[in-house]
Amino acid sequence: METSSTDAETGDFAGDLAGLSRRLREGSTTAVKLTAAALERIEAGNPRLNAVVTLLADEAMRDAEIADAELRAGHWRGPLHGIPFGVKDIFDTAGIRTTAGSAFFRDRVPDEDAEAVRRVRGAGAVVIGKLHTHEFAFGPTGDASCFGPVRNPHDPGRMAGGSSGGSAVAVATGMCAAALGSDSGGSVRIPAALCGVVGMKPTYGRISRHGVFPLSWNLDHIGPLTRTVGDNARVLTVLCGYDERDPGSVRRDPEDFTRELDLGVRGLTIGVPDAYYFDHLDPDVDRRVRAAVSALADLGATVRPVTVPGLADLAALRDAHRTVISVEAYAVHRQRLDADDAQELFDPTVRQRLVDGSAIRGWEYTEALRLLWESRRTFTRLLEDVDALATPSVAVTAPPLGQVETEAAGVEETVRWALTRLAVPTNVTGTPSLSLPCGFSRDGLPVGLQLSGRAWSEARLYRIARALEVGPDSTAVDARFTQD
Amino acid sequence: METSSTDAETGDFAGDLAGLSRRLREGSTTAVKLTAAALERIEAGNPRLNAVVTLLADEAMRDAEIADAELRAGHWRGPLHGIPFGVKDIFDTAGIRTTAGSAFFRDRVPDEDAEAVRRVRGAGAVVIGKLHTHEFAFGPTGDASCFGPVRNPHDPGRMAGGSSGGSAVAVATGMCAAALGSDSGGSVRIPAALCGVVGMKPTYGRISRHGVFPLSWNLDHIGPLTRTVGDNARVLTVLCGYDERDPGSVRRDPEDFTRELDLGVRGLTIGVPDAYYFDHLDPDVDRRVRAAVSALADLGATVRPVTVPGLADLAALRDAHRTVISVEAYAVHRQRLDADDAQELFDPTVRQRLVDGSAIRGWEYTEALRLLWESRRTFTRLLEDVDALATPSVAVTAPPLGQVETEAAGVEETVRWALTRLAVPTNVTGTPSLSLPCGFSRDGLPVGLQLSGRAWSEARLYRIARALEVGPDSTAVDARFTQD
Repeated sequence: METSSTDAETGDFAGDLAGLSRRLREGSTTAVKLTAAALERIEAGNPRLNAVVTLLADEAMRDAEIADAELRAGHWRGPLHGIPFGVKDIFDTAGIRTTAGSAFFRDRVPDEDAEAVRRVRGAGAVVIGKLHTHEFAFGPTGDASCFGPVRNPHDPGRMAGGSSGGSAVAVATGMCAAALGSDSGGSVRIPAALCGVVGMKPTYGRISRHGVFPLSWNLDHIGPLTRTVGDNARVLTVLCGYDERDPGSVRRDPEDFTRELDLGVRGLTIGVPDAYYFDHLDPDVDRRVRAAVSALADLGATVRPVTVPGLADLAALRDAHRTVISVEAYAVHRQRLDADDAQELFDPTVRQRLVDGSAIRGWEYTEALRLLWESRRTFTRLLEDVDALATPSVAVTAPPLGQVETEAAGVEETVRWALTRLAVPTNVTGTPSLSLPCGFSRDGLPVGLQLSGRAWSEARLYRIARALEVGPDSTAVDARFTQD
Repeated sequence: METSSTDAETGDFAGDLAGLSRRLREGSTTAVKLTAAALERIEAGNPRLNAVVTLLADEAMRDAEIADAELRAGHWRGPLHGIPFGVKDIFDTAGIRTTAGSAFFRDRVPDEDAEAVRRVRGAGAVVIGKLHTHEFAFGPTGDASCFGPVRNPHDPGRMAGGSSGGSAVAVATGMCAAALGSDSGGSVRIPAALCGVVGMKPTYGRISRHGVFPLSWNLDHIGPLTRTVGDNARVLTVLCGYDERDPGSVRRDPEDFTRELDLGVRGLTIGVPDAYYFDHLDPDVDRRVRAAVSALADLGATVRPVTVPGLADLAALRDAHRTVISVEAYAVHRQRLDADDAQELFDPTVRQRLVDGSAIRGWEYTEALRLLWESRRTFTRLLEDVDALATPSVAVTAPPLGQVETEAAGVEETVRWALTRLAVPTNVTGTPSLSLPCGFSRDGLPVGLQLSGRAWSEARLYRIARALEVGPDSTAVDARFTQD
């Protein structure tokens, strides 16, 4: 892990948002101190890790001063007030360049904040910088970007994952306390798993995508990355809300996602699928995830295998995902791809994958969409008898940068495929999935446990994750940072 | 108009559902008498008009007896109780063949009623038969079907319109008091306009499509055809309700669509678009629709031109409609089209149009879908300042059967295009549109006025239509049956 020897006691933000908030309100720290500490950690770690692509040092210090002035005046905006926050570089930020990791947009400066940014800023968060994304958010490896690759803090020779790799790295290393990511095929959960942080892909329609560079409008989800489960629930609470400018946005009553956090798992049922999700895993991933499931049983949850026939259809969901994302990403970029010049501004691997989407027929795409909509019903029915499915988030641990093919349990596959195949089904179904750390591989790389639930059941997923995070005694919050 | 000299006074169902219900509850008529009269009119008119493709004489008489027994026992199910009702032959009916007008399904007998059929039956309606549809509901001309063409009661040498032509004809001629239709590109409103009845295409998601043969899942709408506006509101009230088996179904509180019926139009604003909807019309259509708009002004409505730039985009909506319906209809029929044999079971014109959808690319289709979803927002915004747009439903009156090209105001176009082009925009936007009769052309053919409103504003559209229907004195309900 990155740590910085310059952290002042009062600027350290180990612990969680609730603790930081308490200290801010008590006056035992300030937003300026927290921000200064975050900026110090960026200065120390970023040259090696490349998580922050646009640093907002002056803006952040100014915002922190305002946050402190408000606190002094007795105006507390909530648990994000004064908290250093990072934003993936596909979210528009007013007056601040937003590149989507592409040379095409190296100098693009939007006029307006994305809705999600507006919400966290309105809640008092201090935005410290724009964070690395795989080019156009179209890839899980974090190595294609006009800013170069983002690197894993647990081993800078390895991938941090993507496309929200900068968000995962920045949170894991204390460059910010929480960050915004997006997830169209695992892009929040994959880097969360590879870097050892908590990442949530909520229900489709929960969070407005207005002002976020699109990749695939039927699969794009916004989600928070944080160090703890409770932090994640707090950020999600701020992010949600209907927005008529996002055609996928769904009208719901406001929710406090922390409401079930400390209720424990006694009385809950965890399903462990007997197919697809446990096919040819890295043995350490398999071992760590099964240990986490055992821990849930020890904590009082009922654990049972899920063998319903519906799971055989996961391969169909996976194929539908590929069709939908390919067609929609091509449509987003078609005019740029058709232009006579500037093709060298694309990363060649991203460009090729975009072009591949051009040939898919309308009927193939509509059949995939039909499966998508049907799965939104059937997957939720599949989950009627369990509170969550427990699976690995990613089949492997962080691969070395540059690796293209990998092998787990004797099966060869592309690294891209190994990273995404367990994440994509719930992009199709639109149901919520979170990844939380569940220990380390024998060579010290984080492993992620994925919990997936019914539509709109995020509070329940947080409750289960929280139980695992705090363990049988509540002092174990940081046990997962201990390597074995 | 078809009339039958055999109508007994007590079996006649001139007037409206409210009046029939009153007579049924008073005992001055019975469901058996109404049904017998309907069957007599079918016997008299159907050999010439071909509206009923599967007659349910015995089943209907049995159901009518049950309805009467319930009434005698004091159990009144509501305004459809004991009312002769027709069902387009793309709605599944348990134990009764459902063909979609195709030779492929000439002997298909479903096990279960479509949800809409279940609802009208549950409300006490007596289903008298399955009604003519253009083959697979894919055409507005009503002349492609394994049962031959449906004919216009105002001139049997002319089209009744389609694809719900049988429903419009059966209602217009008293073969039933109300009927179910479906509308993916005007298929309720076009035959309603051409035959002189009221047809509503409600908001996308209002009525479950479960058990209805699909044509285009993003454009398919279920809607009622009736003789009066009030009847239509009563049937819609019965039809609505969330159904998780239809992925497009939207959860809404129940509504009584008759609630505004008699409030008049004073204080309401009617918009008259200055482009697209009044382009090269049959002069009689133009004249009749403008007269109806004047009548609304005379009744106290504020009438004003709508010149917002959004209307220039109607041509784009029209093109999006073509892309979406072509791709989705091809996907529905792909396996049948790919089979080596039985291609002769397709009507050749329908088959060719289906095949045309195979070549469209995914990106073209997703761009059309994106426009569709955006228009659902923008079209409603366009209508924020007016209660309804008043336009013609169809640019021409009923064309002669067999005609392929037509000409209005000096512009040549296909008959199919002349019939559909004013209807399709609101299939794309998903906003409600109804067609109601507004008089006749100089050669005695009905003209339809189309009223289109914001999403979920059906009750308001009924109110406006009702004001026009009853006119300045409330005795004028049937004035529209008088030719000029």
